[in-house]
Amino acid sequence: MRGTLAHATSPSTIEVLRDALVVVTDGVITNIVQGADADALQSTLHDVTQLAEDSIILPGFVDTHVHPAQVTFAGSGTDRPLLGPTGWLECYTYPAERAWADPTVAAEVSGAVVRRALKHGCTTAVYFGTIHLEGTLKLVDACLEQGLRAVVGKVCMDRCSPADYVESTEASLSDMEAFVQATIAKAEVAHPNGPLVHPALTPRFIPTCSTALLAGLGEIARKYNGSDGGDGGSRANKVFVQSHIAQSADQLAFVEKLHPGQRDAALFDAAGLLTDRCVLAHAMHLDESELQLIARRKSALAFCPLSNVFHTEKPASTLDAPNAWRCGCNVGLATDTAGGYAPSMLHACRTAVIASRCLHKDTTVDWKYAFWLATRGGAAALSMPIGGFEVGNEFDAQLVDPSAGDPPEEAMALGVLEKYVNLGDDRNVAAVWVRGKQV
Amino acid sequence: MRGTLAHATSPSTIEVLRDALVVVTDGVITNIVQGADADALQSTLHDVTQLAEDSIILPGFVDTHVHPAQVTFAGSGTDRPLLGPTGWLECYTYPAERAWADPTVAAEVSGAVVRRALKHGCTTAVYFGTIHLEGTLKLVDACLEQGLRAVVGKVCMDRCSPADYVESTEASLSDMEAFVQATIAKAEVAHPNGPLVHPALTPRFIPTCSTALLAGLGEIARKYNGSDGGDGGSRANKVFVQSHIAQSADQLAFVEKLHPGQRDAALFDAAGLLTDRCVLAHAMHLDESELQLIARRKSALAFCPLSNVFHTEKPASTLDAPNAWRCGCNVGLATDTAGGYAPSMLHACRTAVIASRCLHKDTTVDWKYAFWLATRGGAAALSMPIGGFEVGNEFDAQLVDPSAGDPPEEAMALGVLEKYVNLGDDRNVAAVWVRGKQV
Repeated sequence: MRGTLAHATSPSTIEVLRDALVVVTDGVITNIVQGADADALQSTLHDVTQLAEDSIILPGFVDTHVHPAQVTFAGSGTDRPLLGPTGWLECYTYPAERAWADPTVAAEVSGAVVRRALKHGCTTAVYFGTIHLEGTLKLVDACLEQGLRAVVGKVCMDRCSPADYVESTEASLSDMEAFVQATIAKAEVAHPNGPLVHPALTPRFIPTCSTALLAGLGEIARKYNGSDGGDGGSRANKVFVQSHIAQSADQLAFVEKLHPGQRDAALFDAAGLLTDRCVLAHAMHLDESELQLIARRKSALAFCPLSNVFHTEKPASTLDAPNAWRCGCNVGLATDTAGGYAPSMLHACRTAVIASRCLHKDTTVDWKYAFWLATRGGAAALSMPIGGFEVGNEFDAQLVDPSAGDPPEEAMALGVLEKYVNLGDDRNVAAVWVRGKQV
Repeated sequence: MRGTLAHATSPSTIEVLRDALVVVTDGVITNIVQGADADALQSTLHDVTQLAEDSIILPGFVDTHVHPAQVTFAGSGTDRPLLGPTGWLECYTYPAERAWADPTVAAEVSGAVVRRALKHGCTTAVYFGTIHLEGTLKLVDACLEQGLRAVVGKVCMDRCSPADYVESTEASLSDMEAFVQATIAKAEVAHPNGPLVHPALTPRFIPTCSTALLAGLGEIARKYNGSDGGDGGSRANKVFVQSHIAQSADQLAFVEKLHPGQRDAALFDAAGLLTDRCVLAHAMHLDESELQLIARRKSALAFCPLSNVFHTEKPASTLDAPNAWRCGCNVGLATDTAGGYAPSMLHACRTAVIASRCLHKDTTVDWKYAFWLATRGGAAALSMPIGGFEVGNEFDAQLVDPSAGDPPEEAMALGVLEKYVNLGDDRNVAAVWVRGKQV
């Protein structure tokens, strides 16, 4: 493929590779050269796609936290409180998640969610399923069928939950392990050279999980990621962990009531869940020592600016991503659909910038920083060899056509990228690749 | 026209008129009936358009502050400071505005800006032109040709401006008056029954206008709106006033230096510019007494959430619209393109909500409030009989098709409106009317 590529090389630097020839073999970037070197190399190759002059190839977006079952009501109920009988969880979230007891519903919604992710230039997603084993496996199927790279988890919750949307500790653990095994098996069949879909242990959040459930999930993590499970390099199917952490003052108070004197980060750590494949969403009420604990464990944070704005007390707080990064934490960006109404990572970039300017005096997320979070940040959070164009990385990418849709086009590549981040939408995404395959 | 209409009846109430028959005569709503009454009336009418079941008619958006000459660079430079040699004004704003010295450029940009406004469901815009008489008249022409309702002003600035983008006091005043006369004449020819385009006296902001210039503009306001100019009811071509006010701590300090002990609101008032057709953008640093002065003068404020976030000190401040309204000020919503990068009033609604949740503890702008500001608020700010569907109002409207574009459709009308406000884009705008004419 030959044309203009752009990617983030630091939180403040976008590198534009003009007239670049990128060679992809079995989904992995094996060479990138420019100019005269590209001419020489191209003459030895067949099957080179020449890109239109104004279009640019970007890394695909990595959305580090999404609730597919909730997507059906995205854009609704944004004026409701989170809790209470007329609240957002009771009126929207739980009904939508309960519907996945029917695998047909789960399959249909999953198919639409994955399609939409790809359409919006997202090539990797971290999906929070529901408590349903079979329903959440439909989500795995949708990712495999459509070729999206994904981390998928069946939700675990054994207390402080609605009577008709809760599991026993035993069922939660056995279904969770069955989900892990089934997902690993499906991913192995679909991609024998290395999985594109990975299972995630998914305690909903500390208040809905007993200590026994958390400990049991920690056991599963050790069992599948320990020495018996093999380390296997970047293409091994490690078991991920995902959850919500330190999301609001209310939630902290709830945890304090259930576990006097303890807080989310220490509780996850005690259970053995702060692994190097753990992604914790929200995280805006962690103190510096908790951020450092997460950094030491090589766990990561998912920054969800839009849902943070809606589902915290007023005035809202959001994760200070540059501060968390300074403390050593890997941070990815996330839509958190439908806690956030917008399924687009472009919207997440814009909201990250707006919220940062409103809330954080000493750090700044500008459009470059947001783009870095949406690509490199997510890749680092998931320890995946994606997010930028270097030899050895897998080729997950999106082709941006500045002349499509509504934003006015502009010829200069950095300008195209800035306008895409600020003004673009799915109409500008002309093609998407995951591991070198157009999907 | 028969189908589902929805409009705001208060900042917290959306009224949905199902199966409504709205009768429009010469652009004015002469009857609205529902159900059996609609059946009876419809049998006496010919030429009734039946709308698709899931679509809804909304009032057209009123964008109370836009800089058309700046639209060419919208989405660029959002990480730059406002002032200084590498700042946003120097590198983007002034070059783009200088280009309007060429009327051909002005005509081309104006045509695109007006087309885009209509495409996004905006039926009324308040346009800040450039210092160029001929260039800004091209903007008037574009509005008249395409049928957009508009307030258009030639910019006045006679000091503290770049040496090659400034006027003498005399030229500024004489060009301004020539612009007023030409616009009134053009609007009279285009719409003899009542103008759709109105001229606005447009001091850029206090620092770039000498006291003599401000006083001279006050004279023009009195001359055209006074007893000699006639009051003429809602369809008379009143001369509007627009400017920026109290936009940042820097700007307040600049005014204090130029006018020791004085502030923006009092200076505008002393010059006679706080009229009942005056719209002042930004306004986030006005104290309660200044808000009350503006309310007494029946002047109005344009709330520009996106540009406020970018062009104030960090952490950002924005106008607290509910507080200004409580003080008696009419407040409209605005994109402030390209101070804000997004040309869509939907985006302005969303940013108003996000900024409110981040910045204002005691008041809340939710999606209903934002929609009210974008329709009723703007109509009240401009004293125009639009913004909602009542007998006697002019029919300025947009038809929303929930099945177009990316957002998932939903059948219930209030849900469609909420999803449109949160997730919709120009693809959902199926048709637009101004004064009853589809444009």
